[in-house]
Amino acid sequence: MPARDLFHNAVRHGLEKEGWKITDDPLSISFGGVDLYVDLGAERLIAAQRGEEKIAVEIKSFLGMSVITEFHAALGQFLSYRLALTARDPQRKLYLAVPDDTYNEFFQLEFTRLAVKDYQLKLIVYEANTEVIVQWIE
Amino acid sequence: MPARDLFHNAVRHGLEKEGWKITDDPLSISFGGVDLYVDLGAERLIAAQRGEEKIAVEIKSFLGMSVITEFHAALGQFLSYRLALTARDPQRKLYLAVPDDTYNEFFQLEFTRLAVKDYQLKLIVYEANTEVIVQWIE
Repeated sequence: MPARDLFHNAVRHGLEKEGWKITDDPLSISFGGVDLYVDLGAERLIAAQRGEEKIAVEIKSFLGMSVITEFHAALGQFLSYRLALTARDPQRKLYLAVPDDTYNEFFQLEFTRLAVKDYQLKLIVYEANTEVIVQWIE
Repeated sequence: MPARDLFHNAVRHGLEKEGWKITDDPLSISFGGVDLYVDLGAERLIAAQRGEEKIAVEIKSFLGMSVITEFHAALGQFLSYRLALTARDPQRKLYLAVPDDTYNEFFQLEFTRLAVKDYQLKLIVYEANTEVIVQWIE
């Protein structure tokens, strides 16, 4: 299986294990003249609120040559998708899924922490081999 | 000459024609554990203020397969460089240089206009063949 699909499936299965129903793979959003595609859309019942929680998840593997180049692409995608979701589907929360090793190294740098804070990125940290969601970071 | 260099030189020469002195090609910024490289750094004397104006310019050709993929990368770079400049060189203004045909089409879409406004992108619009800066957009 190509590495990209391996990471994609890890997050998909990790979400399913936590009770999420995958509704879109990918989730398309048409807005303001462009068609955007976020990797996954998912929903989960919140019994206490008698409602449904909806999320969109962009999955990054950080397997490429340069972690900073991949981070730039991820940051641009996240902020672009958030603009479109705010207009088209404001109840849906957007997350960036990152592998645990990348989170434990690159995402602990002062630069990355400031970027995550300033641009209010929400993160899902996942473990690719075990297909488990390790952490949700709002 | 590779197309990328052609666009790079067009912006460089366009700035020089407007009295800018290119001081860095590329401009490096070390901040918070990462090394970032913006395509150009330039300075110009402002006689009236007896001071110097400083800019950093990231040059995009938008020659790739997908304009939206290039835009995501550009947006991520711009916002990442702006974070680093705010910390390390706050007087320097950051611009994204885009070719006039891309500006006249993709940048007129509702999506792109909203992204430029919301994320406060500053743009330099250039004409690659004549090596002229057509417009500065704050």
